[in-house]
Amino acid sequence: MLIMPKAISFTKEMTGKLFPIETGKLISILNEVDAKEFGLFPGDRLEITNSRNGKKCITFLDVSKDALLNDEVGLFQEVADRLGHKPKDVLMVRAVEPIESVEFVKKKMRNEKLSQDEIKQIVKDIADDKFSDLEATAFMSAVYMRGLDLDETIYMTKALIENGNKIEFKKGIVVDKHSVGGCNGRATMITVPIVAAANAGLIVPKTSSRSITSAAGTADSMEVLAPVSFSIKEVQEMTEKVGAVIVWGGAVDLAPADDKIIKIEHPLSLDPEGQVIASVLAKKSSVGSKFVVIDLPVGKFVKIKDKETALRMAKKFVEVGKQIGMDVDAVITDGEEPSGLAFGPALEAKFALEILEGKRFDNLAQKSCELAGIIFEMTGTTKEGKGYDLAVDILTSGKALLKMKEIIKIQGGKIDSSLKVPLSEMVFQINSDSTGVIDDIDTRKITKIARLAGAPADKKAGVLLLKRKGEKVSVGENLFTIYAENQQKLESAQEYAIKEKPYSFKRVILETIR
Amino acid sequence: MLIMPKAISFTKEMTGKLFPIETGKLISILNEVDAKEFGLFPGDRLEITNSRNGKKCITFLDVSKDALLNDEVGLFQEVADRLGHKPKDVLMVRAVEPIESVEFVKKKMRNEKLSQDEIKQIVKDIADDKFSDLEATAFMSAVYMRGLDLDETIYMTKALIENGNKIEFKKGIVVDKHSVGGCNGRATMITVPIVAAANAGLIVPKTSSRSITSAAGTADSMEVLAPVSFSIKEVQEMTEKVGAVIVWGGAVDLAPADDKIIKIEHPLSLDPEGQVIASVLAKKSSVGSKFVVIDLPVGKFVKIKDKETALRMAKKFVEVGKQIGMDVDAVITDGEEPSGLAFGPALEAKFALEILEGKRFDNLAQKSCELAGIIFEMTGTTKEGKGYDLAVDILTSGKALLKMKEIIKIQGGKIDSSLKVPLSEMVFQINSDSTGVIDDIDTRKITKIARLAGAPADKKAGVLLLKRKGEKVSVGENLFTIYAENQQKLESAQEYAIKEKPYSFKRVILETIR
Repeated sequence: MLIMPKAISFTKEMTGKLFPIETGKLISILNEVDAKEFGLFPGDRLEITNSRNGKKCITFLDVSKDALLNDEVGLFQEVADRLGHKPKDVLMVRAVEPIESVEFVKKKMRNEKLSQDEIKQIVKDIADDKFSDLEATAFMSAVYMRGLDLDETIYMTKALIENGNKIEFKKGIVVDKHSVGGCNGRATMITVPIVAAANAGLIVPKTSSRSITSAAGTADSMEVLAPVSFSIKEVQEMTEKVGAVIVWGGAVDLAPADDKIIKIEHPLSLDPEGQVIASVLAKKSSVGSKFVVIDLPVGKFVKIKDKETALRMAKKFVEVGKQIGMDVDAVITDGEEPSGLAFGPALEAKFALEILEGKRFDNLAQKSCELAGIIFEMTGTTKEGKGYDLAVDILTSGKALLKMKEIIKIQGGKIDSSLKVPLSEMVFQINSDSTGVIDDIDTRKITKIARLAGAPADKKAGVLLLKRKGEKVSVGENLFTIYAENQQKLESAQEYAIKEKPYSFKRVILETIR
Repeated sequence: MLIMPKAISFTKEMTGKLFPIETGKLISILNEVDAKEFGLFPGDRLEITNSRNGKKCITFLDVSKDALLNDEVGLFQEVADRLGHKPKDVLMVRAVEPIESVEFVKKKMRNEKLSQDEIKQIVKDIADDKFSDLEATAFMSAVYMRGLDLDETIYMTKALIENGNKIEFKKGIVVDKHSVGGCNGRATMITVPIVAAANAGLIVPKTSSRSITSAAGTADSMEVLAPVSFSIKEVQEMTEKVGAVIVWGGAVDLAPADDKIIKIEHPLSLDPEGQVIASVLAKKSSVGSKFVVIDLPVGKFVKIKDKETALRMAKKFVEVGKQIGMDVDAVITDGEEPSGLAFGPALEAKFALEILEGKRFDNLAQKSCELAGIIFEMTGTTKEGKGYDLAVDILTSGKALLKMKEIIKIQGGKIDSSLKVPLSEMVFQINSDSTGVIDDIDTRKITKIARLAGAPADKKAGVLLLKRKGEKVSVGENLFTIYAENQQKLESAQEYAIKEKPYSFKRVILETIR
């Protein structure tokens, strides 16, 4: 429906009152009388110009009953900073109309297709803080409900790339991997050193995320072994020296627009398919990746629940990759079981290292080698069908471990001979109250237990599974161990674990009729 | 997709730091370290309990870089008030999970139908400030994109009624009118006194809105003649005394949940059909209306653009009315032309009074009498087909004017013998730069000119049309007059009026090919 004109463009001289709060938003505040005088409501745009230095900032209005006098405008820290505000400055204040790209949001809401220019403008305006949180939420709601078709996904990917930063490497073929919505394991910490250890000219400047809803992100786990916050320049130099890094993407600031979009998606857990694809591939493109393998785990406790969704996403990943000059292979993997036994930063780091050290070869090792194998085949490092074997060779030869040590060292981590990851001694064992065969492990519940225990903020907190799907257990046997660094957190994790029972057992009798 | 568990329910003792800003929102602030410790992101829920008095408040988190020390939680004024916070209080702080009704929002986003209980819960939670602005925006976006079907509209109406307040009158049949998305005129100020003057036992406790995007709302215009802010009790007493009032609904606080929803709809001008119907009928129900006429103007410059939409809405209004025990007649009216010549609080009040005084009988008078006529027929005051005649009788007899004087008086307005509305002397005439017949008047542009001139905050500001559609004008003749109370505003209105030309002229030659 109609957006009626809201602007009343007269200008008023006002004084500023600082509210020293930094929340990353451009908020100004008026009292009710002044807001009415401007004809404005909360969320409308107020342009403020500092008459002393000409600095200008378009802000989003909040209205307060008591905090401000007439002719006084409240400034949150970011606004004051942009205006170079000093206490006695005269501020020229006027209402301004919504930006044009808010109309494009309405267009998407009406289920009309957006053009390349429209998506470009939206992403640019979000990157430049010209969208309010409410407008950005409405946009992500629209993308979630209406979807992005293949064209729009390509436009979105290109727009994110254009509004991001870039790393250009002097030599080497940049390759990468990404896993969509798995829940634990850290295949990255195994696959990356295997690939970089192949001596095939492949480099892996891997940027990873921290956990949002899981027990640990790769960046959280890697941080147990070495610092993970680096600038673009440092990532480039380190990768050029040792062939790979595993760093936290949030610090590198490669994709500021995307970071803002992800923040907006969080409160409602919105993660529309098209946006996920655009976000992942834009990040890969920003580090110059030429060959990328995308891992799509399918299972009832992970993000992608069915194979049809995974196949559809896989095809889109491949096609969007093609459009931005990137060779993408997408693989659908078994997500019915957790890919590792550990949940939590230190636990997952420890288990990844043990695989690199040759102390274990489990599901996670298997997956990591398969993913590395695909990269070897995509890049022509090996013939078709030989990639996995090469990956296993590199892993078992110890070369991947040596490469991982180089990565840890160049990122500033300590290298002991044994690479020991100390665990917490504050533990609680959860035992089986039943005898039988394990039918299912609810990894969402395990994740929640690990988070209640303190992960990922408490690095040593988490859960270690002692039994896997299909194993037989007896009453009283240990099912899993909870680790914590804080007694109160341990207790709330315990309580939840005992109540919610993440393990379920095979039952033959489904119902009894009497 | 999956909402992963976010709660980490350990409790931390913190001290409060007050940020004395009242914005009607329950905002708390943590620094980045504490937010990470809790595993929380902006928009997540933080429960704060004051250990001194046991008072509790669930807040929405913002994260600040510098504003807070570790173990310090920032409290906006409303949160501090709810906690009865004093500087040295120990606050028990913990993360809590999203409320269940946020899941119902996701359900609506996925285009699943909501049950009565689900809609009830959403509305209750919004009324109780349990939704963040982002969640509420996502909900209204979902309602806008997915729509509410007839059942859901009925559930929404009932939920708004349940979460609102009520007026019960000792005697009299409560009747009402409502106009959906017209742009000027104030038929209410004519229809209401006509109906109340009929001596037929009909009472009209009319609550009106202030302008949001128009040049004046009925409450803004009525306020030129008398105060409009009254409590529920006052509305009841005044109506019982004189048979009708015309007050500002925002002050009466009949529909707090609805008021909150409307605030959320504003920044994106979201006004989903089902929500509009529920909102209007819930407000009518709260004052006990038994017979209601709904006016649906259709035209290219008003909210409803086509007759199909109007018909669909009309049927829904009638059906929802039936479900809540209300007799509703919906009428589709000609919205191609403005329903009065005046735009702005004082101008519209003046023209409505002149109609009541018998000084003019124009389009607006016509419409007001037709609407009153329908109410007379619905209530059996007259036979079918005789309502309009009775309304005209009451208007021309001067009884409606007398009733209006009673209404103004009981609301505390001044009654002079002539009821003169003074206008501003700061005016600017816009003249025609063409000779011809007026084909169209863009009332959106006229509205914008009136708002640039200061309406509705400046009561005497606005626009008065001097020529109507179909009239012949010569170059240099006056088309309309801009009124203002402030020179700067007058100039910006002038500038816009000259540039944007709201009047267009008939053209016979549509295209010339040479």
